[in-house]
Amino acid sequence: MNVNQQPYRTIWANATLQNLNHENFNQVCVIDQTQLPHKFEIVAISNVTQMIQAIKTMQVRGAPLIGAAAAYGMALATQHDANDAHLITAANLLIQSRPTAVNLQWAVSRMQNLLINTPLDQRNFAAWREAAIICDEDVALNFAIGAHGLSLIEAKIRTQIQSQTQALNKASINILTHCNAGWLATVDVGTALAPIYAAHDAGISVHVWVGETRPRNQGASLTAWELAQHGVPHTVISDNAGGHLMQQGKVDMVIVGADRVTADGDVCNKIGTYLKALAAFDNHVPFYAAVPSPTIDWAMSNGKAIEIEERSGDEVRLMQGKLANGEITEINILPVNTKVANPAFDVTPARLVTGIITEQGVYTPANLKHMIKN
Amino acid sequence: MNVNQQPYRTIWANATLQNLNHENFNQVCVIDQTQLPHKFEIVAISNVTQMIQAIKTMQVRGAPLIGAAAAYGMALATQHDANDAHLITAANLLIQSRPTAVNLQWAVSRMQNLLINTPLDQRNFAAWREAAIICDEDVALNFAIGAHGLSLIEAKIRTQIQSQTQALNKASINILTHCNAGWLATVDVGTALAPIYAAHDAGISVHVWVGETRPRNQGASLTAWELAQHGVPHTVISDNAGGHLMQQGKVDMVIVGADRVTADGDVCNKIGTYLKALAAFDNHVPFYAAVPSPTIDWAMSNGKAIEIEERSGDEVRLMQGKLANGEITEINILPVNTKVANPAFDVTPARLVTGIITEQGVYTPANLKHMIKN
Repeated sequence: MNVNQQPYRTIWANATLQNLNHENFNQVCVIDQTQLPHKFEIVAISNVTQMIQAIKTMQVRGAPLIGAAAAYGMALATQHDANDAHLITAANLLIQSRPTAVNLQWAVSRMQNLLINTPLDQRNFAAWREAAIICDEDVALNFAIGAHGLSLIEAKIRTQIQSQTQALNKASINILTHCNAGWLATVDVGTALAPIYAAHDAGISVHVWVGETRPRNQGASLTAWELAQHGVPHTVISDNAGGHLMQQGKVDMVIVGADRVTADGDVCNKIGTYLKALAAFDNHVPFYAAVPSPTIDWAMSNGKAIEIEERSGDEVRLMQGKLANGEITEINILPVNTKVANPAFDVTPARLVTGIITEQGVYTPANLKHMIKN
Repeated sequence: MNVNQQPYRTIWANATLQNLNHENFNQVCVIDQTQLPHKFEIVAISNVTQMIQAIKTMQVRGAPLIGAAAAYGMALATQHDANDAHLITAANLLIQSRPTAVNLQWAVSRMQNLLINTPLDQRNFAAWREAAIICDEDVALNFAIGAHGLSLIEAKIRTQIQSQTQALNKASINILTHCNAGWLATVDVGTALAPIYAAHDAGISVHVWVGETRPRNQGASLTAWELAQHGVPHTVISDNAGGHLMQQGKVDMVIVGADRVTADGDVCNKIGTYLKALAAFDNHVPFYAAVPSPTIDWAMSNGKAIEIEERSGDEVRLMQGKLANGEITEINILPVNTKVANPAFDVTPARLVTGIITEQGVYTPANLKHMIKN
């Protein structure tokens, strides 16, 4: 997607594969998402330790992007030392960097399996190529998610026109999203926002309610920023306001991303998603999670078994923003010595989920089992 | 309650009634709650315009305290000019300062009715005396709310002991609250926090989950601060985390305040309350609103009729806190030119409410009608 009218992906290698050999020193570039929306900054990453750090500090975040970043982390590890022992160590460290994201494990395992079965002298080239393929696949998946989600949006608008709540020439749709499952969370296009971009690009009048998404404010800082860059009308709200807007009939559809979806259709996503799903259910608003199929954990049926990452209390205590003089700084919003709990995710039970939008189509939780398991 | 070991109320006249005559210039003191938790500052208010400003800018906030502040606002107006026309103008301006709070209308009407029916030369004394009575009544109501709420807490603990989820000597209770309905929201003791203070003072091991309460962060800044001053164990969480904690069985009870309760038991309270009530219902956690009876609007049955105050988007955009150097400042957390919607309240339908804790006892929404209407 565009940033200041320039097309970007969220991650890329800064050397072409053609020029790549063992002597070349290849870096991976990412957008430092901790600086958004105030500063657009590219960070060059030179080794797997830096990549693990970028994942841990959430310079890169969002399940699909974490997967791509981990794949490039394996490429950086291979470039440094392609031996089995080193690759296995790197793989384990990468997997531990964010325990909840199933894409991370998926991408690292794919890289590890490929590399272990590749002759030592071909591993570096194979690693960089495979990481690039993982990125391209993600973009293709997201375009497919966008197309299937667009059909849902079009169907919803047709229903509204038929029930005469809207005239054809005034047809518009209000979609609420939580956190950031936009192009910044993926390699490009996004998951939850892919249908929104597809609808906007198709000329549909779409407006997005963007939940602030405490802590870390990914909605306020990332989703609002990327929607603005693409020109999609949107309004930021506190996370607390989502239920009220649904009660008022101001939300036609909820679309969120997910860090993990179980085989039964339980949705593990940014903390607070469960509350929005409850409100959607209570107000007969359809609730969708948009995910590429690697996000579905076929080995797990009940979401209650998911280990929920407890992150630092400083994410709640400290808030980043811009002073009146333009300087970016961090303030403490709590009384001194206040204890904080910070579970990063919650699990929305399948009974509250209308559908899972995937690259293969839209599935109810009960029908997920009919998907082709990649 | 105590601040730095000194007993305080949230509002008081700074001259004694004994010394009061038409020549005395009487002021009203309040705690500037916009400076908490970083700075404890007393503000002296000299006229009704300043009082309206203090209510609008939320230096004083919380339905019962707004009522007391409006009563003192009428006293300040009377001191300036006790004529009917001036009192009626002052009353109307006070009522418009926060449209949602029913206590405000109640207190202003009570003052206005009394004063209009008092001989002109006795109005000033009568006004200051009536405002002081309103304050004392609020404190008495809150102590009664605390006593009735304490019975609920004791009953809950007895159930837990009987179902052997807790041993008697380890009996403890986790209560989740939203926003600030503590002593800072009232003249003293609080409404939602009154049962918690009563339990804590009775030696019960009570722990409070304090929702941050975006926007304005009244939970993080006010509730956390006042619980700390009184020594009640507590943990701050993002508003998004409340549902997850209930799913995990870590919440035994929810107690919130309310800005208005309808005759049918619909609860109008700080935005986000509805989401917590949905989660409580979904997880079989009892959900209570604690209110003095003047907060019940007997003239309104269905909460959908309540006009919801839309406040400035800057409450979402700007965040106040302390820099590392100790300076208190404000930062902007949104991309430039981002549109914000900021509904200040939502309505929790009675079907999600376990009970209303009042000074007369605890009532289910269906039984509210048996209350004595003051």
